[in-house]
Amino acid sequence: MTAPLGLIAGLGELPVAIASNAVASGQGVYVLRLKGFEEPALAEYPGAVVGLGEIGGVIERLKSAGCKDVVFAGIVKRPNFKDLKLDMRGAMLLPKVVSEARKGDDALLKVLVREFEKHGFNVIGSEEANKALLAPVGLIAGPEPNEENLADIRAAAKVASATGALDIGQGCVVCDGLVLAVEAQEGTDEMLKRCAALPEAIRGKPDARRGVLAKRPKPDQERRIDLPTTGVSTVELVAAAGLAGLAVEAGGALLLRRADMEAAADRLGVFIYGFKPDEVS
Amino acid sequence: MTAPLGLIAGLGELPVAIASNAVASGQGVYVLRLKGFEEPALAEYPGAVVGLGEIGGVIERLKSAGCKDVVFAGIVKRPNFKDLKLDMRGAMLLPKVVSEARKGDDALLKVLVREFEKHGFNVIGSEEANKALLAPVGLIAGPEPNEENLADIRAAAKVASATGALDIGQGCVVCDGLVLAVEAQEGTDEMLKRCAALPEAIRGKPDARRGVLAKRPKPDQERRIDLPTTGVSTVELVAAAGLAGLAVEAGGALLLRRADMEAAADRLGVFIYGFKPDEVS
Repeated sequence: MTAPLGLIAGLGELPVAIASNAVASGQGVYVLRLKGFEEPALAEYPGAVVGLGEIGGVIERLKSAGCKDVVFAGIVKRPNFKDLKLDMRGAMLLPKVVSEARKGDDALLKVLVREFEKHGFNVIGSEEANKALLAPVGLIAGPEPNEENLADIRAAAKVASATGALDIGQGCVVCDGLVLAVEAQEGTDEMLKRCAALPEAIRGKPDARRGVLAKRPKPDQERRIDLPTTGVSTVELVAAAGLAGLAVEAGGALLLRRADMEAAADRLGVFIYGFKPDEVS
Repeated sequence: MTAPLGLIAGLGELPVAIASNAVASGQGVYVLRLKGFEEPALAEYPGAVVGLGEIGGVIERLKSAGCKDVVFAGIVKRPNFKDLKLDMRGAMLLPKVVSEARKGDDALLKVLVREFEKHGFNVIGSEEANKALLAPVGLIAGPEPNEENLADIRAAAKVASATGALDIGQGCVVCDGLVLAVEAQEGTDEMLKRCAALPEAIRGKPDARRGVLAKRPKPDQERRIDLPTTGVSTVELVAAAGLAGLAVEAGGALLLRRADMEAAADRLGVFIYGFKPDEVS
């Protein structure tokens, strides 16, 4: 019997795509839904709900379920550490977690990955758990980007890399060389909504699209957790902001419900483009 | 007779503070309000309304009015250059403006400053036109920042400097080392409003304030234009987001209606603090 995939899950489509793929592939899945971030679509899978501070409980349950591979996926907002309910192992890990958390999200995630590895688990990325998620190279859907769009893709990819190096975020919107918005804790969708509220003069409009959203991993991030993720709503909000398209790092970003994303891009007349890292540097 | 101050003005309190100060000091003022960004409170001063592309017209009018010192102040959003109405000099300058604009806001402003200097004007900063505007060193109002606040001020000042170097913007919100938001084209007020929409766990709340907004100039910016500006609404929105305070670079940021800002900070229990550049590096 295969060991079921251990899925430590927050909200959103990503953990659902991983769970359904694990079942479809015959591996099976055991889902730990995190309290406060319980994705309803995951309730049908075997598993349990656990608190964010119950590190010991999570490890015990994964061992009991016979899991070897473990994947972290889905949206979880950073808690106020003072309010966390901790089990013994969580309490032991807390000082390290709090000190790393002051360095940013990524340092915090690395502590968690190391803790699971110490207990013999094999922590894998979402794209390894479901290979269909990873963004390919080149034009993925919609019209070909023009020269101005390609220049904006290069500029936006550079800014996303620089803000990523500062552990700020993974996304950026550029139009005609001007940085319209930088993503931090609000997330991509909120960033795109405020772009739609900027004057049309600096961002284009549906019948004269200009500007791009770029998403790419932070240069030094733990790539097995938290690769940049886009979905149908990303495509729709890119279109609503008058932008020309969405550019993601090929091999470094996840596309959720890709067929639906492609259909939306074709229908709305915006591109989805996978850039190679050496193409934008 | 003194030469009146030439004020090229957009929206907001800053150009009003400069115009009223120029009159109060006896110098007098001549105000060119930019079409589409006409601050109503400036209508009472001598001057005219001019289009953004009428560079020649602006220069002629300033000369006729006998101006020598010229100051740029107030909020103007970048136009779509294709839609600009240009006079002869504007048309001659356009290729340079468009190519510099692709490098970012600051490059664009430097072109404009050089053009006015070429015509013999002395371009001065808002803080030179009204010395009371410049932020001083140390605690300006409200409670003393604690150790965590000072750590967040250092972190936020560093991020603001890094994003400033990329010509993204001048402001950043950090709480417990986590970058909550980075300012780009949406402006400080919009950035603070979205911070108030983030979970309280990562930003503090009115009875347990955490996190700071830092504002500072871009490292290489033209300091005579576009110094970071804060006002009463900044203080109110800092408070509404549950943050502990507002930190600005001493000698590198403007405080509008400072007495009102201080009263708001004291009333709401948030600090206003002027950090020295060598204190945060």
